[in-house]
Amino acid sequence: MAILFYHQGSTGPIWVEPLRAAAPDLEFRVWPEFGNPDEIEFAIVWHHIPGTLTQFKNLKAVMSLGAGVDHVVRDPDLPDVPIGRIVDDRLTAGMSEYAVLHVLWRFREMPVLAAQQAARHWEYREPPDAQSTTVGILGLGTIGQDIACKLAVFDFKIAGWSRSPKAIAGVQGYHGDDGLEAFLNACRFLVCVLPLTPETRGIINTQTLAALPPGAHLINIGRGPLVDDEALLAALATGHVASATLDVFNQEPLPADHPYWSHPNVTVTPHNAGDSLPEFVVPQILENIRAALSGRPLLNPVDRHRGY
Amino acid sequence: MAILFYHQGSTGPIWVEPLRAAAPDLEFRVWPEFGNPDEIEFAIVWHHIPGTLTQFKNLKAVMSLGAGVDHVVRDPDLPDVPIGRIVDDRLTAGMSEYAVLHVLWRFREMPVLAAQQAARHWEYREPPDAQSTTVGILGLGTIGQDIACKLAVFDFKIAGWSRSPKAIAGVQGYHGDDGLEAFLNACRFLVCVLPLTPETRGIINTQTLAALPPGAHLINIGRGPLVDDEALLAALATGHVASATLDVFNQEPLPADHPYWSHPNVTVTPHNAGDSLPEFVVPQILENIRAALSGRPLLNPVDRHRGY
Repeated sequence: MAILFYHQGSTGPIWVEPLRAAAPDLEFRVWPEFGNPDEIEFAIVWHHIPGTLTQFKNLKAVMSLGAGVDHVVRDPDLPDVPIGRIVDDRLTAGMSEYAVLHVLWRFREMPVLAAQQAARHWEYREPPDAQSTTVGILGLGTIGQDIACKLAVFDFKIAGWSRSPKAIAGVQGYHGDDGLEAFLNACRFLVCVLPLTPETRGIINTQTLAALPPGAHLINIGRGPLVDDEALLAALATGHVASATLDVFNQEPLPADHPYWSHPNVTVTPHNAGDSLPEFVVPQILENIRAALSGRPLLNPVDRHRGY
Repeated sequence: MAILFYHQGSTGPIWVEPLRAAAPDLEFRVWPEFGNPDEIEFAIVWHHIPGTLTQFKNLKAVMSLGAGVDHVVRDPDLPDVPIGRIVDDRLTAGMSEYAVLHVLWRFREMPVLAAQQAARHWEYREPPDAQSTTVGILGLGTIGQDIACKLAVFDFKIAGWSRSPKAIAGVQGYHGDDGLEAFLNACRFLVCVLPLTPETRGIINTQTLAALPPGAHLINIGRGPLVDDEALLAALATGHVASATLDVFNQEPLPADHPYWSHPNVTVTPHNAGDSLPEFVVPQILENIRAALSGRPLLNPVDRHRGY
């Protein structure tokens, strides 16, 4: 019996040693050095190559090394085993810091004040009023709800949209396809934390951006392909969307010639809104390995058809 | 009987009409057109000329048109009458927005990420950990306590310093001259919201800046003269202080040739961290006028010797 650690990314190696240290009784093998494939009973994956998991005939479960599972369920040949994911308070905290920081940065007109500073120009600007400003959260899972709570501390009006109805104190709720336009109409700020699924791909498009009030601000910390880049650039060009703050992109790293880099009203960050650290995540992984091996349900299971 | 409105500043006129509309039975006279000085029984002031209030022999109270009263009590010839000030939830909310915004901006290394964006350079940076980061609040009045609460939402460790002991849940408290150094030793971020008094003038100086840990960040939203500018520039030059975010200055407007404007690690904003609006403040002013005229104690009274 062995565990496959299958991480396509530079930070992969930092995870294996803490796992081995925490569970010396388990054998971890790192892709592509997995030995006899029949011995692999559990796979921890991050952007695995589609189709490559079929060779592990005795796989009992797959776990995403993150909150998102789009990189797992996109595999048409994904083995029919339970899927788990990470739910990490520290990841959630980082996402909320990012959302509150960038809402406040645009709300308090810091780009204007920075331009005044660059020009050595002192001009008073009256601070705007949070109580009459609506921030909308697109996606009300663990992360979206945490962002809503932390923005509410500043007396913003909070709206939220989710696929199915959710009643959350202090959040004006909207749901489903029928509720999306009314939700967007209300949002002076739109914070997008949806998972990437076939239904959400391209959800930020010409039509939905047009439903925002003029001068709205977009913050996307969900997944890059939620956004139709051409539609967003067109909405920024007319000023209908005043700014976009983007941590995730259709292609990562963002190509050096992409117009986002130099757009005066776009903030680009390198997909670091939130992060998981081994000490927080290793116990969840081990719990799911033990659960899978003993036939118990996984912690934080994923519905592969829903995609989250 | 008449009320003197004595405001040296461009936004003065926006206050008089709301006062007149809310209290048509009262007569408001705007400096310097005050008529017969013996008729003035109440003065609403903002940066009045020292010595000029002595001519109002029947003055019953003076009220500052703001939270700070340093501009009132600096007058050596201030009449010996009760002094009131504004305590405004909206002003407090603005100060807290500013403090949280700028702590998060520096904490999340946004200047580094902005430089990466300018260079079209994608490089992941691991988000830092708030739980192991201490933010210190210098001054624990209404505003300082609100900032402490709102920063605590993000799981920062919160320290606070006040002249006399204050027990505030979730805040590691320090007080008095003896407690200042230990407080500063703990502060990776220092948010200064002290009132300006003879004791606090120049409190941010060579010695106190040296007591901060290397690489600390300063945010001053109290009053400009709390800071010794030469000491701060020297600490920025060595990197001992990593950044300064300044909303208030020894001279306002900040002179066009001041080194703060172009310092790469200084953020300059035009004294707009918080603001009061007439609709929030007019009721407090009217309450104090009625109190003074009928001999009742003022709302939000000030101890002229303590200075706040």
